[in-house]
Amino acid sequence: MKQYFKLDEWKIIEEGFNAEHQQIAESVFSLGNGRMGQRANFEEAYSGETLQGNYVAGVYYPDKTRVGWWKNGYPEYFAKVLNAANWIGIDIIIDGEQLDLAKCEVASFRRELNMKEGYLKRNFRAKTVNGKEVEVEAIRFCSMADDETGAIKYTLTPINFNGPITITPYIDGDIKNKDANYDEKFWDEVKKQANPNGGYVQLKTKKTGFEVATGMLFTISQEGKVRPVEKEKYVAAKVDLLAEQSKPITIIKYAANLSSQNYKAENLVEQLNQTLDRVSKKGFDTMLAEQAAAWAAKWKHNDIIIEGDVAAQQAIRFNIFQLNQTYTGEDDRLNIGPKGFTGEKYGGSTYWDTEAYCVPFYLATADPKVTRNLLLYRYKQLGKAIENAQLLGFKDGAALYPMVTMDGTECHNEWEITFEEIHRNGAIAYAIYNYVRYTADEAYLEDYGLEVLIAIARFWSQRVNWSEAKQQYVMLGVTGPNEYENNINNNWYTNTLAVWCMQYTLDVIVKVKAADSAKYNALISKISFNEGVEFARFTHIIQNMYYPYDEQQQVFLQQDGYLDKEQILVKDIPIGERPLNQKWSWDRILRSCYIKQADVLQGIYFFEDRYDIDTIRRNFDFYEPRTVHESSLSPCVHAILAAKLGDEARAYEFYLRTSRLDIDDYNNDTEDGCHITSMAGTWMAVVEGFGGMRVKDGKLSFNPFLPDKWQSFSFNVGFRGALLNVKISKAGVDIKNLSDTQITVLVHGEEREVKYSG
Amino acid sequence: MKQYFKLDEWKIIEEGFNAEHQQIAESVFSLGNGRMGQRANFEEAYSGETLQGNYVAGVYYPDKTRVGWWKNGYPEYFAKVLNAANWIGIDIIIDGEQLDLAKCEVASFRRELNMKEGYLKRNFRAKTVNGKEVEVEAIRFCSMADDETGAIKYTLTPINFNGPITITPYIDGDIKNKDANYDEKFWDEVKKQANPNGGYVQLKTKKTGFEVATGMLFTISQEGKVRPVEKEKYVAAKVDLLAEQSKPITIIKYAANLSSQNYKAENLVEQLNQTLDRVSKKGFDTMLAEQAAAWAAKWKHNDIIIEGDVAAQQAIRFNIFQLNQTYTGEDDRLNIGPKGFTGEKYGGSTYWDTEAYCVPFYLATADPKVTRNLLLYRYKQLGKAIENAQLLGFKDGAALYPMVTMDGTECHNEWEITFEEIHRNGAIAYAIYNYVRYTADEAYLEDYGLEVLIAIARFWSQRVNWSEAKQQYVMLGVTGPNEYENNINNNWYTNTLAVWCMQYTLDVIVKVKAADSAKYNALISKISFNEGVEFARFTHIIQNMYYPYDEQQQVFLQQDGYLDKEQILVKDIPIGERPLNQKWSWDRILRSCYIKQADVLQGIYFFEDRYDIDTIRRNFDFYEPRTVHESSLSPCVHAILAAKLGDEARAYEFYLRTSRLDIDDYNNDTEDGCHITSMAGTWMAVVEGFGGMRVKDGKLSFNPFLPDKWQSFSFNVGFRGALLNVKISKAGVDIKNLSDTQITVLVHGEEREVKYSG
Repeated sequence: MKQYFKLDEWKIIEEGFNAEHQQIAESVFSLGNGRMGQRANFEEAYSGETLQGNYVAGVYYPDKTRVGWWKNGYPEYFAKVLNAANWIGIDIIIDGEQLDLAKCEVASFRRELNMKEGYLKRNFRAKTVNGKEVEVEAIRFCSMADDETGAIKYTLTPINFNGPITITPYIDGDIKNKDANYDEKFWDEVKKQANPNGGYVQLKTKKTGFEVATGMLFTISQEGKVRPVEKEKYVAAKVDLLAEQSKPITIIKYAANLSSQNYKAENLVEQLNQTLDRVSKKGFDTMLAEQAAAWAAKWKHNDIIIEGDVAAQQAIRFNIFQLNQTYTGEDDRLNIGPKGFTGEKYGGSTYWDTEAYCVPFYLATADPKVTRNLLLYRYKQLGKAIENAQLLGFKDGAALYPMVTMDGTECHNEWEITFEEIHRNGAIAYAIYNYVRYTADEAYLEDYGLEVLIAIARFWSQRVNWSEAKQQYVMLGVTGPNEYENNINNNWYTNTLAVWCMQYTLDVIVKVKAADSAKYNALISKISFNEGVEFARFTHIIQNMYYPYDEQQQVFLQQDGYLDKEQILVKDIPIGERPLNQKWSWDRILRSCYIKQADVLQGIYFFEDRYDIDTIRRNFDFYEPRTVHESSLSPCVHAILAAKLGDEARAYEFYLRTSRLDIDDYNNDTEDGCHITSMAGTWMAVVEGFGGMRVKDGKLSFNPFLPDKWQSFSFNVGFRGALLNVKISKAGVDIKNLSDTQITVLVHGEEREVKYSG
Repeated sequence: MKQYFKLDEWKIIEEGFNAEHQQIAESVFSLGNGRMGQRANFEEAYSGETLQGNYVAGVYYPDKTRVGWWKNGYPEYFAKVLNAANWIGIDIIIDGEQLDLAKCEVASFRRELNMKEGYLKRNFRAKTVNGKEVEVEAIRFCSMADDETGAIKYTLTPINFNGPITITPYIDGDIKNKDANYDEKFWDEVKKQANPNGGYVQLKTKKTGFEVATGMLFTISQEGKVRPVEKEKYVAAKVDLLAEQSKPITIIKYAANLSSQNYKAENLVEQLNQTLDRVSKKGFDTMLAEQAAAWAAKWKHNDIIIEGDVAAQQAIRFNIFQLNQTYTGEDDRLNIGPKGFTGEKYGGSTYWDTEAYCVPFYLATADPKVTRNLLLYRYKQLGKAIENAQLLGFKDGAALYPMVTMDGTECHNEWEITFEEIHRNGAIAYAIYNYVRYTADEAYLEDYGLEVLIAIARFWSQRVNWSEAKQQYVMLGVTGPNEYENNINNNWYTNTLAVWCMQYTLDVIVKVKAADSAKYNALISKISFNEGVEFARFTHIIQNMYYPYDEQQQVFLQQDGYLDKEQILVKDIPIGERPLNQKWSWDRILRSCYIKQADVLQGIYFFEDRYDIDTIRRNFDFYEPRTVHESSLSPCVHAILAAKLGDEARAYEFYLRTSRLDIDDYNNDTEDGCHITSMAGTWMAVVEGFGGMRVKDGKLSFNPFLPDKWQSFSFNVGFRGALLNVKISKAGVDIKNLSDTQITVLVHGEEREVKYSG
């Protein structure tokens, strides 16, 4: 399915009704506001293939783990994203027949996602089996301005008939997760009420006890006979009316989702009613205008404009749009699931994707508090990360953050990942470094950062062991970012990251101690940090760590023994055998030299300043031809490094592999949801790759180039109070300051003062 | 639970009723005859904790696989042992109250397994809640002489009452497997019939379609009113009679299990009736006498007598007894499950245990056809082993035998085992070598053996790869016998075994070609063996294989990088942290130096003649202190090597760890069933360890020693038509020939003629 959707700079457009693409479209047209979200399911009934999805951020269920063979240390439960009550439903019965596009003759169909203003619009004209023709326009959004609410304006016009129509707006909480290990339902009903003009259902999750009240208020432009209906976890109002040919009937449905995370459970309904009152008084058009204004503010901070390539323009905006729909940084209990609000897959919410890929995006495109909240999310889960490490046999306050989590508890159970893909711990430390480097918010280190860093450094110091044979420290039994290798020894990336973590921790200790010794002393007393002993141990490891290296090719070795593998390059694998993860058995993949995603190169990306350009080039030229890029997170790092190496054509090629991943369904899996976290990687490819943006000694630095196919591109980034528009065109690099904070940047290494430019 | 059972040279005895030991006793007192078997459940109802188990050899169900995370190459189904119809049941209702030891006051209880004659006897005296006292004696066995049948003699004597008793012999096929991934029942009813003196149930397995007819005929010593009863998958006859105080009532129940593996399904009932007629005409006492005779014949071939240590005597006989109950070698479709007929655990039937541990036992203690049938079992599954290898990406007739199987299909799904614990393939080749070495049956190679060997050699030749770095062949991504290491490179044992397989295959090719070139040509044509190319490839690998070795300590290295691990010896692990597999997380075990069971030492055991005694000692002294023996298969190999090294005390110590494993429930898991295959290891410890028995140049050789605590020990072994009794006492080594085949053996390296000695 290439280019199924129409090209447009600000919209995603589907024309014509194709049932076989319905689930892909449901993913791509998904809506969200950071607090809640939903797939682009239809308001009216649809009996075709569909994945129904409504999600409330932070509400999860600990599903009992399913394993083949239990390994000591596995978590018993897997917290997963919950499919929540459907608030979009509006059943339409025309003369006794359910309006259902799977059964109608559909004369025209158009769906568009307006990314500029943040709403979904659908128009269609269809004829029922009984020959009744209708035209429908449905507009809906999840409000960014009022993030517990959403609204729908559904207008139905009879084309060729007068007659009875029953319109049934409803809330349906009798929902089943597609992803449920033992086929259970996860919600219990607390209470509900159906009224003539609305209603609510209050549900409670099993085990976790989250309560969510979902309610609606609606108006219909034409009078009718109303019958409230209540069923299990379901409320509705059936409205019978007589439709007139060519006379539009407009249903406006206001909805709200309130959760016991933010209110006392016993007050939810009262709060819900107040919220619904407020938005319905505002009215649909005002809400929609607020929505456009909220999105305009977002775009001001983070739009990217590409001239001369509509497909690229559409794609980059789609990626930015989805990232903003998924996470707004308002709440430090929330995080960024790999599928956001677009599907259930990958169950848990938080992966190392957040720190490694999403943090750079939010740092540059949002208020610093957004990233700070992502950091605080981990800070608040430090206790659980320490427990998690204890479960695996670590001690003395060492923390291992989970591979996948909702609330800090490990949710993954595959030993080679759960127990061994520990580089995630380093990414969490790196994000702290990245945040401080970008924002200069040194106070964060004193208040929160150092505590996390010490716990992580303690983990690494226990996780390495002294090798008598090598007379160096080694790290055995790990899985690097390249998950096509498991249980390897001395993964260069992990060893490098671990030592960096320990060094950075020591640096921060010195800094914090100097800045505020009282705070420092309080901290080390709280966490029983033995400065003498632990400082010495960290230092000894830093000075005596082993890193695999190949003298002959002068490259860092991905792990011990990597060069024992048969070295056939990716280009020489027969086409029919790819993707490897579908065509090869797992053992064959494991013993091959093929790399899923940047591993040594991820380390070079993180610590670019340490390596001269020849070293970067040698490693890139060695590893990239062995990389199959079978993770959506792979191409962006390669794009950035290719750009760094001046290989503009390849940088562009890598960028293309991710930018339209979901819109064009490259991996045949968009129906499960969109690859939200990899969208941040696409942004990185443009800004850090083509734009060459870095932070150098507290200044933003740009080494941009213009891809051949583009006339120009520009991006907005914020930095320490300034808001810049950076435009790269054939004419050169033009930087405008959209704020009144004067700033000095580097362009191709030269300092440039950028003043407010109106 | 140490020494719960009483010591006796020929019996296992339980005295007193202990509900908390019931499931352990059910395992230890299990009965079987190679064709069918059962746990020692009670005949009458029992409402306490119990694991009901009746099994019919070769009847399995492919349960849908349960995995946490699917890996390419995993099998979809897991064939597992089926719990089959219960034929032992006899309900007793006394004056309206069910006789049930869980509810009675039990005045006395004794259970004994008579291993000499092959039956289980149970006596008890109990008082019901209503105050009725009865005495019961129950004797039962699975007939060795007539292996589709079994019989029970159940005698009940009212002690303190006259009154109504209802006796209900039944067959119950409404059975659930404890081990069922999705809680399904695996049997459907085909037909059934309840008669006044018996009845049958014919069941069919879902998916596999095995049909099994289970029937009974019974007599009761006292007249009563009979009502046949039929329920789903259940037949019974309720017999109401009036019992008289002190007058024994004897129920004799004859049972038979016939399977569609051996008869047409439509004839099963007719055959079943003939079988039941035959045995009932014979009568219980005649059957029991035949049973004693059949067991006398077994014991003649394989008894071990230990003087001066009753516990050791009892234990070794228990192990021999269970091995004979599990596999008799009558049928080349059957094999030896790790739990035999004593439980469902480990689901599948066949592991490499058979070739590595059981083959030596059966070679020495049974007719050569018994081992030959174990070999033919694998020969007949060669096609599936080739398919299995294809699934993983191998080609050109390479075979990978499954880790666990019933019918040749892989049934295990844990990537590090299923795909990587490939040394099993070598054990299958080694068993062929071992069989031919022991029996001199060279024709087996021509007819079957070579075809298997070539397929296995082909696998190894594809599984290795050329390392440009080492300029040698390497084998990456394997798991050795030490399953506490996964996905390692160049496991010394696997590399050694693989090369040995290729060399042995080449040797056998030369031999077979010389012996019968027509047969050889037919074979290589059938399997498209390209002699020139493949011979050369095997040879190149044999000559250029890499084996990890440590120059400093002069030991074979278990795998690449083993010496990077922290080398703390097992004796220095705090007691509370063992067994590691219960106390440590899986990743911690993996990165430790601790060894689950013989790995390098397994190779040294297999290829002992290659290594001088110093090499063996260096490796033993290096690896044993790092071995936790957390597999029941571990101590025997260590006992044999310790004996070889002259360390008699340690050899004896290792022997003790396995000999009473189940009787004394060392691992707290006997309730799941007995460790059948490790029992062969115990036999090996005595005969190959203390007896120092080997085959040297076509002769049996003995280098025995007498453990300090024993006065003497003797064992019977067969070898190429001769049957020997070898007795080691303080007086020296006495060898008697129980057969009329003269034979020359080596004793401490000296030839000794052994003639028939009456």
